[in-house]
Amino acid sequence: MNDTTSRLAGQVRVVGAGLLGASVGLGLRARGVDVLLADASPANLSLAIDYGAGRASTPDADPVLVVVCVPPDLTASVVAAELAAYPNALVTDVASVKAAPLAALQASGADLSRYVGSHPLAGRERGGAISARADLFLGRPWVVCTRPALSRARLSLVESLILDLGATPVEMDTAAHDDAVALVSHTPQIISTLMASRLAGSSDGALGLAGQGVRDVTRIAASEPELWVQILGANAPAVADILRALRDDLDHVLGALGDPEAPGARRALAEQLASGNAGVSRLPGKHGQDRRYAQVVVMVDDRPGELGRLLTEMGEIGVNLEDLRLEHSPGAQIGLAEIAVLPESQKRAIDELSARGWRIAG
Amino acid sequence: MNDTTSRLAGQVRVVGAGLLGASVGLGLRARGVDVLLADASPANLSLAIDYGAGRASTPDADPVLVVVCVPPDLTASVVAAELAAYPNALVTDVASVKAAPLAALQASGADLSRYVGSHPLAGRERGGAISARADLFLGRPWVVCTRPALSRARLSLVESLILDLGATPVEMDTAAHDDAVALVSHTPQIISTLMASRLAGSSDGALGLAGQGVRDVTRIAASEPELWVQILGANAPAVADILRALRDDLDHVLGALGDPEAPGARRALAEQLASGNAGVSRLPGKHGQDRRYAQVVVMVDDRPGELGRLLTEMGEIGVNLEDLRLEHSPGAQIGLAEIAVLPESQKRAIDELSARGWRIAG
Repeated sequence: MNDTTSRLAGQVRVVGAGLLGASVGLGLRARGVDVLLADASPANLSLAIDYGAGRASTPDADPVLVVVCVPPDLTASVVAAELAAYPNALVTDVASVKAAPLAALQASGADLSRYVGSHPLAGRERGGAISARADLFLGRPWVVCTRPALSRARLSLVESLILDLGATPVEMDTAAHDDAVALVSHTPQIISTLMASRLAGSSDGALGLAGQGVRDVTRIAASEPELWVQILGANAPAVADILRALRDDLDHVLGALGDPEAPGARRALAEQLASGNAGVSRLPGKHGQDRRYAQVVVMVDDRPGELGRLLTEMGEIGVNLEDLRLEHSPGAQIGLAEIAVLPESQKRAIDELSARGWRIAG
Repeated sequence: MNDTTSRLAGQVRVVGAGLLGASVGLGLRARGVDVLLADASPANLSLAIDYGAGRASTPDADPVLVVVCVPPDLTASVVAAELAAYPNALVTDVASVKAAPLAALQASGADLSRYVGSHPLAGRERGGAISARADLFLGRPWVVCTRPALSRARLSLVESLILDLGATPVEMDTAAHDDAVALVSHTPQIISTLMASRLAGSSDGALGLAGQGVRDVTRIAASEPELWVQILGANAPAVADILRALRDDLDHVLGALGDPEAPGARRALAEQLASGNAGVSRLPGKHGQDRRYAQVVVMVDDRPGELGRLLTEMGEIGVNLEDLRLEHSPGAQIGLAEIAVLPESQKRAIDELSARGWRIAG
């Protein structure tokens, strides 16, 4: 199978043409799949069709797979309706909570042998078909919720969808999924929101001192309230458990800050900070503090083409760039390109770039 | 005055040759200033000298300015000693808290007419002379703490240092400074730490679902506990005030999550999320969500030189890159270069890059 052929044989119906639905459509269209789009809003639907995410679904549609991409609150009712309308189709959904829709479906008496819940760990701060892209899921984990009643063939069909979209299938049971996203997605959202809320009433002078730290902590606080109310409401017990443990830690910190000279106060702060060090070091993957890569920091003049010239010359030297971060302060004439390279390439990169006249910082 | 001449006439003594001290030294040396370095650790001192941050201070030193770059707990005693040892020098320090050292100095009876507290909003997660760089302060705000007793001439001397290092002087009184950094630096540090602490005992499966959101929220949780215990201890009341307000919000969130179907529960969550939206939108500057720029997302093959070729061609087209973020998932054969350009250049960049065969995403 080459890179542009679909693993899916047959039509795929996508219900809900927002960011996720339109991105699924774009990705499948790129593999030649016949994508049938539906959306409660005719305007959303035509926008997604204009973007090339598929064609309008027709009454004679006979999809092999239905992908429900509607907000969490609507997921169970739309999945039930699709199961009833397309008795030959497997139905999946992409909601970021999985136990609540499953429980609602079980209560509704729907034919759950044809339902597989799933959840792509992908998204953007902005929603809508206008932000959709075929590669939204590229390299991202996509959870497939297993249940004892589900056959391997049915799980495989959803995994074919996931592989078609360039994502990585991860099988988990429903409860494990909801606990995991409570920790790595829902609690960080609330924490970011709580911190950002403190900025709302502050002075411009204080905000003028803001650096990258507070920006990073509060970035996801820009997310859509309407969507997040649904997500948090649907995963409330798991999120509340984590937040209660976090509040206990916060109370210890507040106790220490109440009298920082008291015996044990500094030790309590140090232990909390060390525990944060331990937690963040457990996050896997390729990122800023990744120990697998060495850093080369190059000063780059702020002119068109300069960064391009730098990276072209790195290509000429034969050093692959594993990651790149650009630091560029407002008004500065110079930016810093922080380039991650394999440790064994670091010295050669620095020597050869210096020889070509680049200024290496740090 | 050209770009490489110092505004300072005379020797500058830098006490403490860690990240900040060595970076001050490197920056001043680049302007030809005679930098005299001192450090309690002979090993630190020789490392900083090896890096080119200055020469070892001598007994006959007669500095016009002393810059104290030691940990917050030591700042007051080192400033007092420097004021006594160099009666012709103005003394400043770079500690990230300002009221506590000032109070200790006032209690010590030191000659405070020659002391100006200051604080550069710059740093890195890693410390030591080994991480120092001449441009660490480039484009960053650097607070100068005003007091009624300080003459304009003395403030100006510190501001000359700041301008020499490429930073922007910001005058504030001591209390306003400490309140501001409690909000934009110290509280985000604790919040990031508390979130990261929740990851410490979690399962690998859950962490495998982590995306950019939790990474951003917890990035600064990797900071040095030893330093932060001192900072938090020295600014405890201001930080505790903000954390108590945050805990009140957290309690409201927990109340709503305790019974998300209760009347008012979803509204409480929505209002908290909206307040976070409002807070994060107040952060100034050039960053991810900056509305002043338009985005062009280009798919780039993971081969040496490809990103360089892209950016070189952007230079040929004549479109300046305002910011760049590289998204590259582990194992993926393709990365996404998210390029910020001026809105008026977006269409031209997309058209011309497409014409040259680049795949534009999003």
